Amino acid sequence: MYDRIKGFRDFYPGEMGARREMFDMLEATARQYGFREIGTPALERTQMYVDKSGEEIVEELYSFEDQGGRDVALTPELTPTVARMVVAKQQELSKPIKWFSTRPFWRYEEPQQGRFREFYQTNVDIFGSSDPAADAEVLSYAADALTGLGLTGDDFEFRVSHRDILGGLLEAFDADVDTAAAIRAVDKSAKVEDEEYYGLLSDAGLSYSQAEEFDDLLDTPEEDLDELVAFAGTERVEEAVTNLQNVLEATADFGAREYCDLSLRTARGLDYYTGVVFECFDATGEVKRSVFGGGRYDDLIESFGGQPTPAVGVAPGAAPLSLLCQRAGVWPDEELATDYYVLQVGDTRDVAAEVSRELRAEGHVVETDVSGRSFGAQLDYADSIGAETVVIVGEQDLADGNVTVKDMDSGEQTQVPVDDFPPEDVARPTYEDFE
Amino acid sequence: MYDRIKGFRDFYPGEMGARREMFDMLEATARQYGFREIGTPALERTQMYVDKSGEEIVEELYSFEDQGGRDVALTPELTPTVARMVVAKQQELSKPIKWFSTRPFWRYEEPQQGRFREFYQTNVDIFGSSDPAADAEVLSYAADALTGLGLTGDDFEFRVSHRDILGGLLEAFDADVDTAAAIRAVDKSAKVEDEEYYGLLSDAGLSYSQAEEFDDLLDTPEEDLDELVAFAGTERVEEAVTNLQNVLEATADFGAREYCDLSLRTARGLDYYTGVVFECFDATGEVKRSVFGGGRYDDLIESFGGQPTPAVGVAPGAAPLSLLCQRAGVWPDEELATDYYVLQVGDTRDVAAEVSRELRAEGHVVETDVSGRSFGAQLDYADSIGAETVVIVGEQDLADGNVTVKDMDSGEQTQVPVDDFPPEDVARPTYEDFE
Repeated sequence: MYDRIKGFRDFYPGEMGARREMFDMLEATARQYGFREIGTPALERTQMYVDKSGEEIVEELYSFEDQGGRDVALTPELTPTVARMVVAKQQELSKPIKWFSTRPFWRYEEPQQGRFREFYQTNVDIFGSSDPAADAEVLSYAADALTGLGLTGDDFEFRVSHRDILGGLLEAFDADVDTAAAIRAVDKSAKVEDEEYYGLLSDAGLSYSQAEEFDDLLDTPEEDLDELVAFAGTERVEEAVTNLQNVLEATADFGAREYCDLSLRTARGLDYYTGVVFECFDATGEVKRSVFGGGRYDDLIESFGGQPTPAVGVAPGAAPLSLLCQRAGVWPDEELATDYYVLQVGDTRDVAAEVSRELRAEGHVVETDVSGRSFGAQLDYADSIGAETVVIVGEQDLADGNVTVKDMDSGEQTQVPVDDFPPEDVARPTYEDFE
Repeated sequence: MYDRIKGFRDFYPGEMGARREMFDMLEATARQYGFREIGTPALERTQMYVDKSGEEIVEELYSFEDQGGRDVALTPELTPTVARMVVAKQQELSKPIKWFSTRPFWRYEEPQQGRFREFYQTNVDIFGSSDPAADAEVLSYAADALTGLGLTGDDFEFRVSHRDILGGLLEAFDADVDTAAAIRAVDKSAKVEDEEYYGLLSDAGLSYSQAEEFDDLLDTPEEDLDELVAFAGTERVEEAVTNLQNVLEATADFGAREYCDLSLRTARGLDYYTGVVFECFDATGEVKRSVFGGGRYDDLIESFGGQPTPAVGVAPGAAPLSLLCQRAGVWPDEELATDYYVLQVGDTRDVAAEVSRELRAEGHVVETDVSGRSFGAQLDYADSIGAETVVIVGEQDLADGNVTVKDMDSGEQTQVPVDDFPPEDVARPTYEDFE
């Protein structure tokens, strides 16, 4: 009768269970690095996004006027919100500030594979350190989370670049270049035809031969980064190259170097990035889109009215990451699992409920009949929820003081005195304990 | 520079940590009962709420027209969404369907203590059983979750009622009664003056003397419920009384009877409830508002175009529940805690990072310097994040092959060979292990 809205999704238990495993790994890894969970609102003032990204952003926003006459928008990303939160309590928060959160965001874009209008991200950010170790810690966090999901260095790579190398090189040309536009062109280069790419660079102010030369520079391998310094001859490029090298060196200490490749063509679309930027890609190329990205945005807090505060972060997105995990064959099993189903035959609810409570008190997942169902219907249901053990509480058995413990895998079963079930000395009793 | 929107909240790590503990308990308990997590969208078609609750609901909704011309609304509650999801896959889902989820909802209401425009609930529902055991399981789940949070029977009570007792009694009067309006009056009775209450009952169609008689009936104690059957003389009231008695009997089997009190004045505001309804209150009365509520809504799935499917659920809300926990002195500690801080003195990042990785591999929460900070600044930071143990990795110590293990509580410290730290046979090494 009612349909859901285009680009929005319902997650039923099987799929949600797999997603929960993914979120748990992304979050548990963040906690292990000392990132702290925060909670953030779904609505912000539209002006915050317009100030940051220009009026065009409104086309991509779910924005509206609320009953109080406020222009508000469903948050399209977390970064402006956390920047606002840092500014609001800047004096009280001890630095570095290390925060994470998982939640949905909303953008009015055309849905495609791995992209939805409502999408989930785990945002992980460090505020208050400009040290290369902070960039490296974010990369190292991301690598640990991905390997924790079962991915290996054969499955993913972090393509690492630096905004000031790109900006500094563009600056070195004898031309009036719109740096932000040129960087957006680089960000698009892999997704568009050469003609369009060069057109965009031309729109940004480079002549065709300058664009060609610029593009050639982007192929500079890591060991020749000094050539870029020589080409530009500016402190900006020299510092950027040194910074990038220091970050890569720090990732070696942090155990993430093997996942990082220099890739100056990696630019990140958002304007607020200032230093190292990176994107995670499927190393096999099968998943075409960037899986997620991150980078340094040292100017944002100040632009929000705060004290100058360097920042770096990463935001793994659930949909593209699940595509990568599926491609790599490590997406969690979507089958339901249940430790115990306590089956009632006849008027045995009191005993079945008691057994269920005792098993739950040991931390197990336990269901019992709440529908007054037949033996067969209960057994079918137990099977449908992946029950490992069924405890059959029957009137006749109970008259003899027994219950039946059934292994759902083998179908084998045995009788056990109800006074001994669950046994005190077995944390997770199964059929094998009573053979 | 930017402020957050009225009625919306930012949660910083201390408060968020306490909330996370609460959500974890609400969710872990649901999992133990075999409820499965689902994921649901933040936007639905506005029409879904208008059809269910009338045009007036729009005033309370954050609703707007999206770029595609759809009338959409931020979800004010979960029940219509899960009803839509059940209808969409009714054939595939094995019953009973047992689902839970935790997420924010949005209503444009005046904020007050424990009520915000963005508020979080854990919704727990059973679809496909009309058996009193299903109602009892929902009550039993709620009781287990609350006692899991540290609350006791002295802290909370479930006031249990039945919509068909209220409806059936109203029907028995010789008057043309708007039952829904009269039930809404009962729902409001505790919050308004008697005059307003009787005025609302009069608007609903009862004379003053009928309203008085009706109100007296609501004081009927549990042992005299049969008097209500005699008063009404209808099958509807007889069946409702029997059903309520059966539910209370089932809560005895399920271990939740001690938390349940009959309270016919408990009505629940929402129109879709059909059978047993209940609200959780602070047993001391200090928290005045209902903490949360739930009940049976057997007609909703059919009204959404599905097969007739009985349903019962409960939805603990984070804000009022946290007020109750605070009143009872069981709200979790909001202090940050960290297992280890690995402090770097001099150029020791490689060793400090290695030690950090080894400790994280054991599952611990570990931070190390990512800011190039001084000894004192690092120690202050370690203190601010509640580090239990600080491992000092100093250049001079390292020259002798040592690190220093410091207990942050006592301030005591000792040197340990770096090759033996972390030791292989100690899962969570602290100062005590090396004294």
